[in-house]
Formats: sequence, structure tokens, C-alpha cells
Amino acid sequence: MPGALSTDLYELTMAAGYVAMGADKTRATFELFVRDLPATRGYLVAAGLEQAICYLETWRCTPDEIAYVRTLSALRGAAPEFFDDYLPRLRFTGDVWAVPEGTPVFAGEPIVRVTAPLPEAQLVETALLATILFQTSIASKAARVTQAAGGRPVSEFGGRRAHGTQAAMCAARAACLAGCQSTSNVEAGYRYGVPVSGTMAHSWVMAQTDELTAFERFMTIYGEQSVLLIDTYDSVAAARHIVGAGLRPAGVRLDSGDLVDLSRAVRRILDAGGLAGTQILASGDLDEHKVAALVSAGAPIDGFGVGTALSTSNDAPALGGVYKLVEIEREGAMTPLMKLSSGKQTYPGAKQVWRVSSRTGVVRDVVALVDETGPTEGEPLLRRVVRNGKRQQPARPIDEIRASCQAAVAGLPEGVRRHRDATEYPVVVSRPLAQLATEVASERSGRGALEESGSQPS
Amino acid sequence: MPGALSTDLYELTMAAGYVAMGADKTRATFELFVRDLPATRGYLVAAGLEQAICYLETWRCTPDEIAYVRTLSALRGAAPEFFDDYLPRLRFTGDVWAVPEGTPVFAGEPIVRVTAPLPEAQLVETALLATILFQTSIASKAARVTQAAGGRPVSEFGGRRAHGTQAAMCAARAACLAGCQSTSNVEAGYRYGVPVSGTMAHSWVMAQTDELTAFERFMTIYGEQSVLLIDTYDSVAAARHIVGAGLRPAGVRLDSGDLVDLSRAVRRILDAGGLAGTQILASGDLDEHKVAALVSAGAPIDGFGVGTALSTSNDAPALGGVYKLVEIEREGAMTPLMKLSSGKQTYPGAKQVWRVSSRTGVVRDVVALVDETGPTEGEPLLRRVVRNGKRQQPARPIDEIRASCQAAVAGLPEGVRRHRDATEYPVVVSRPLAQLATEVASERSGRGALEESGSQPS
Repeated sequence: MPGALSTDLYELTMAAGYVAMGADKTRATFELFVRDLPATRGYLVAAGLEQAICYLETWRCTPDEIAYVRTLSALRGAAPEFFDDYLPRLRFTGDVWAVPEGTPVFAGEPIVRVTAPLPEAQLVETALLATILFQTSIASKAARVTQAAGGRPVSEFGGRRAHGTQAAMCAARAACLAGCQSTSNVEAGYRYGVPVSGTMAHSWVMAQTDELTAFERFMTIYGEQSVLLIDTYDSVAAARHIVGAGLRPAGVRLDSGDLVDLSRAVRRILDAGGLAGTQILASGDLDEHKVAALVSAGAPIDGFGVGTALSTSNDAPALGGVYKLVEIEREGAMTPLMKLSSGKQTYPGAKQVWRVSSRTGVVRDVVALVDETGPTEGEPLLRRVVRNGKRQQPARPIDEIRASCQAAVAGLPEGVRRHRDATEYPVVVSRPLAQLATEVASERSGRGALEESGSQPS
Repeated sequence: MPGALSTDLYELTMAAGYVAMGADKTRATFELFVRDLPATRGYLVAAGLEQAICYLETWRCTPDEIAYVRTLSALRGAAPEFFDDYLPRLRFTGDVWAVPEGTPVFAGEPIVRVTAPLPEAQLVETALLATILFQTSIASKAARVTQAAGGRPVSEFGGRRAHGTQAAMCAARAACLAGCQSTSNVEAGYRYGVPVSGTMAHSWVMAQTDELTAFERFMTIYGEQSVLLIDTYDSVAAARHIVGAGLRPAGVRLDSGDLVDLSRAVRRILDAGGLAGTQILASGDLDEHKVAALVSAGAPIDGFGVGTALSTSNDAPALGGVYKLVEIEREGAMTPLMKLSSGKQTYPGAKQVWRVSSRTGVVRDVVALVDETGPTEGEPLLRRVVRNGKRQQPARPIDEIRASCQAAVAGLPEGVRRHRDATEYPVVVSRPLAQLATEVASERSGRGALEESGSQPS
């Protein structure tokens, strides 16, 4: 399990500093949000919250880890009680509000909000960002790919190209919650109950003396649920051999070549051979654009297997997400804070996002302070998921998340859902939040810390 | 630890099939290689072998995992002994040959070669690919970034943008073995002995009543080793405040704005204030191109912090790597095999890569069959790292790998090392290997499995 060392060194340096300053009980709120959407994305789909909650619940620093931390020269100067008392008793005791997994989200909207004693909230930054941003990028890509498939099932099978084995498992889960019917990743099935599926590899065909023997042996064992991979030598010839031998597989898979032409040729052979019920699955470096092209060409493909594009979100493999301090306890009250760095300003205060709908679907989001009354017709997106370090709801089944995700994505304006040149979804800031930002910025400016002109929160 | 379920479902289906066919002792050789380099890469740097070996050494299927696998409908048909006998006793018993970590590698060259009983070699495919390809992509990016820095130290600090916490740790390691001086990832320091470094975050500055107080408090605790982040409000003003207050930090960090202008302005202020020894570190969405531009502009920057580009290899986040069956035991002898799929042909037989040098550096690689004598002046790249399932060497220290990596990269032809429009490094196939490929392809063709014209291994 990733623990307290799954963090950046400066988080430990700062945490030790807060402990030394006696600020270890000072409460603070941080918000995790994406600064800008990747150029190719009109919306994101939130994911990773379940893993983030598991992380917080089991967050510990072991004696061996503490012994290592003591050796770090960067922490020379930290008070002994940080190592002797604070780290051994480290637990996450804060509150977390978050947008449910599977929800479309946009730039500048808090996806996760953490209120906790300052050093705790600080130390969990790195792992929360890595967990939420990664899975959100995968879920966002999966929503696009599965939308492109227009109802045909998509299976995620990019584990081998994922960023390691944990990433493979988490990408599988994120892809399935945002629309994929299944994954090839067995670990994701075991841990998260995601449906698993698979066919056969070229090596199965190559390992036998000839292709037809390979098909026959597979079907002897697995029967009519078998999906045969037919492109090891020649896809069209393989389809003929299947028909000729009287095999009745559930499906065949094409993995190379011109998938429009090949699927048509193979479909004709199968149909003529009495195998109208045998499905054609297609794979081979597919993404949302290639899937959409195959669908629009009318290729007789019944389902898609998508690998690298899903497991790495290869056209947008990282999100510009941050975790920013927005308020801190001073003299018993929460004081709003903002950062004014050039081009990287933030909005102060703890926030809620309100999603406003018309009769035709959602029309805009309003980012507001938590203590405002939201727009009367809107729905608040952030919900409390952890209270005093304790999870508030059991893990949601993937099927349920997928269903609500698909409905929510379908309810977005058409332009926002477009795969190229998406229109921008309107996200506005409430009047009280805008006013607070101006006040905090000018107060900061008045104290001489803001000397640039034209600095505005964005 | 990732175990036997960290795989694709079809690996299990095929393994059960091999067991059912009585082929569980049949030896086979698979080779892991990258089909094509990403368009932006002239070379790759091999990495991830250490984690791959750890994976193989601890590879198990637990009783709970077996109970789950039994429930899978896709495995209905598998013989009971697969669940009752084969999976409970699962161990990796094969041999692994591999290119040492830190070695430059090119398209079409085996990076890892596995010879093992067929189902074992098959089941480890997914995890080996995910482990080696991911870390190789990160190391390759890190070699570029650190070359661009021209000797100035680069610290990896992209953990928060990595694909989860395991990816953060492994990316940190891969970046350091290919040239980074340090990482901010504490877990990588704890587990792999990688040097860790860090400064402070904007939140430290924001959490205090004012910036100077934040700086002073930090230096009270950590003394003159402190590196102060100066861009929370205004970088130039912060530098003046540091000088004015008589602070003597080891360094300051710039994280936004025009880094050429700001570094010059800050350098002047520090020098004029008697802080000529205070270093300037720069960060903020840097990559090899931005680092090279800063270096060539003569910006007075002493070191770089690079995040997302290093932790995700964001311009090439996945490698087109595969793991292909190249020979199988038939009647007691290894028989070479090849795949002929359109555009995805492979070369048959177990191979060695020979790197040939002239007096000026390396000039070409020759991919040859293992039982050939290599070019007399060449050096064989693949070495045996696992024998009968046992590791042959202890883990190599990161410092040692980094030193040999930097020397090897420096020895590549200049055009190959270029960051844009790199020239192609010559990788040729030995005459015996080319001949074998022709023989196997035509034999396969003669058996009627190859019907397309013009199919040639590539």
C-alpha cells in the first residue's frame, strides 16, 4: 500500500515545519482542480476517488519509513517530536468533499476538497493528485472512445502499455466506470469486480503446428464462447478455414490491416458459411477517431478492443491539475487565501460547484463559496465522502457509476461532447466569490506583496 | 506486490489451454522489443529491468486469486488441474536475458528475452511489457532533458502528474538512472536509494501571514540549506525582501513567468545583496526544449526541476512495444517461429544484439541469432539476468547505472541524440537471421497460411 512516503520531499519538510511552529492542529482547506483542459478535451470525467479514499483510510508511516526519513539531510533541523511523536501517530483525520466518480467536470472546478490539520492536508497532496488526475484522464478518454463506438461494446485492453502494473489496474477500472463494458485486466476484475474479457494472442496460433489446429484446440477446450484471433497469417484465409472446418466460434478478432475492407470480407464469408451469429471484433491501435471512422464507414464490427489510447490517454497523458490552499484557520476562523503568481492565480475560499440545467440538459456550472446559497435550480456536485478520517459511503459498484456517467455525458451540450474543436462549456464564478477574490487580492497587494499590474485570478 | 493476476485474461485462457494440451513443460522463447520509435525519439534508454526481475522472483497466485479465477466464465472449460495443481504451484522457473538498464536501445532490438515453459512465459507478458516499456519511456525522456541541461543538475518532481503512486515512484527511479541528479519522490528514495531533494510549496508561503515571515520561519528551522520559492506573489520583490532581511538561503526557486528575464533580474538583486552563492533553480512545465532554450539564452539558472514531462514522457507517453513468440520446443529442439500479420511481421529465432564501435563511438547495431558468432569488434548487449527463475546479479546502484548511461548516450552519433529531426541509428539484421526469416516465411507460405503477396518481415 502506498503510505506516507508516497509524497514529495517538500511536503515532509513543510509538515515538519508546521509541527515545529505549533501549527499541527491548524485547520486548512485545499482544493484539487484542473487549471485548463487539454486542447483535445471538451470535458473531463472525474475518477479515482475510490482509490483516494482507500489511500487516506490506510495512510500510515511505518517505523522503517520513519528511520529512513530521519536520515534525510533536508530534514536536519526538524524538531525531534516530528520523528518521535508526529509521524508514528500519523493518521488522516480530516474531511473530504468530492465530485462523485463518473461526473463530467471542467477546468477550474474543485474535484476534491480537503479540510484537515495543515500538515495532514499538505502531506497527502502528491498521492491525491497522482490518483485523481491519472484516473480522471483515463475516464475522460474512455468516455470519448465509448461515445464514438455508438453503443457497440468497447473492451479496454491496454494494460501492457500502461505506466506499470498499478496503472494498468487503475486504468482498467477508470475506463470501465466511464463506459467500457469490460477490461482484459484480471487484477481489476479481482479487486473491483469489473467484468473481464479476452480472446487469444498470436502466440497461441504460432505455438501450434498450424492455425486451424490452434483454432480447433481452443474451441475443444472453451467451446462456442471462443473468440478466435484470425490475423496471424491472413485474416480472410483464416475466416474461410473456420467456415470450412465447421467451427462455430462466438466471434473472430481482426487486429491488423484495413479493418473496413477486412471486416466486410470476413462478414461475407461468415454469413455465407452459416455463421451469421459469429461476431466480428476489431482492435489494433484504435482510438476515438478511428472507432468513429469505422462506425461511420458502416464496417460490420460488433465490438472494439482498445489498448494504448485507453490505458495512457495517449493524446493527453497528463492533466494540469493542482491542489491549492484556499483557506486557513486564524484565530479560530477560516481565512480565505489565494495565490497571485503570474498566470497561476487561484480563487480563495472553500467552494461548491452548482450544475444548472434547463429542460434540454445542463447549461452551465457556477463555482460558488460553500456558505452561499447556490442557484435555486442547480445541483451541488461536491458531496462529503470522508468525515473525521472515516469513509461516509461504501464503494459504489462500477455498473452504477457507468450508468450515471453515460447519462451525464449524454446530457452535455452537443458541442462540448465533440471529439474535435469542442465548444467551451460555460463555467462561471458566483458574484460573492468574485468579490472575495478582488478583496483578498487587493488586501495582499496593499501589504506590498503584489507589485505586478494586471494580476487577476483566473 | 503485483502477482499472477496482473495480466490479461487471454494469458490465463491460453495458459490453461497449454496445460490442457500437456504443453505446460514445452519451452518457448519470447522477445520484448519496440516496433518503432516515437516520431520525437532518436534513441531509447532501457529501464525497468530491476522491477521486472523482482516481479518474476515473487510471482505467485494466492488462494483468493485462484478462487476468483475459478469464477470466470471465460475459463469454463479449463481442466480442473489448472486450478487445483498448476496455479497453486505457479513459480517463474525460466531464464531471462536482457539489455542492462541505462543502455541506449533502438527499434526492433530485443530488450528482454524470456525462455521458459510456455504457460509461464505467456502469463508474465503483460506485466513485463508494462514494467519495461513504461520505465524505458521515462528514462528515454530523462536522457533528453538532462542532456539539454548541459551539466546543470535536473531534479525530477512530477510525481503528482504520474499515472498513480507506483508510477510516480518508478518514474522517479527511471529518471534518475538516465541522468537526473535527484527526485522529490520520497518513496523512490526509501526503496531505491535515489537521492531526494525539495524546496517548499506556495502553500507554505500562503499559510503564513506574509511571505517574508514564511521565508524566515523556514530558515530558522532548516538553516542555510533552504531553497526558498519566491514566485507566490512577485518573484523580484521576494528576492529584494530576502536580501533586505539579510537571509542567506542556499537557493531560490522560480516557478512561473519569463524565466530568462526573471532569473537575470533575481541574479542581479542577489549578487548586489552579497548573495552570489545563492543558486537560482527554475521549474514550471519545463521539458527538454524549454530547458535547452533557457541554457542557450544564457539564463543564470543553476538547476532545473522538471515534473510532468519526466513523470509521464508526455510527448511520447507509450512505446509501441511487443512481446513475441520467436521459438518453441518441438520434438526436443527449438523451432523458430514468426508472425506474418500485415505490417506486423516479426523475425524468427532467439536473438542477440551486437553493438559495433569505431574509434569515434558506436556506429551500428547488428541483430543476430544467438547461435551465430557476432561481429568480431561488436559487444553483445543482452546478458543473462535470471537463470532457472533465480536472479544472477544483485540490484545495481542507481549512480552506477547513471554513469554508464550518460557515457553511452554521449557515445551515440550526434544526429541520433538530436532533440528534433534525429537521424536514424543503423540497426541491421545479420545474414543468417535474414536467411532464416525468408525460410520460415516461405515454409509458412507453402503450408497455405500466407496468401497475401509482398509480406516481408520488418
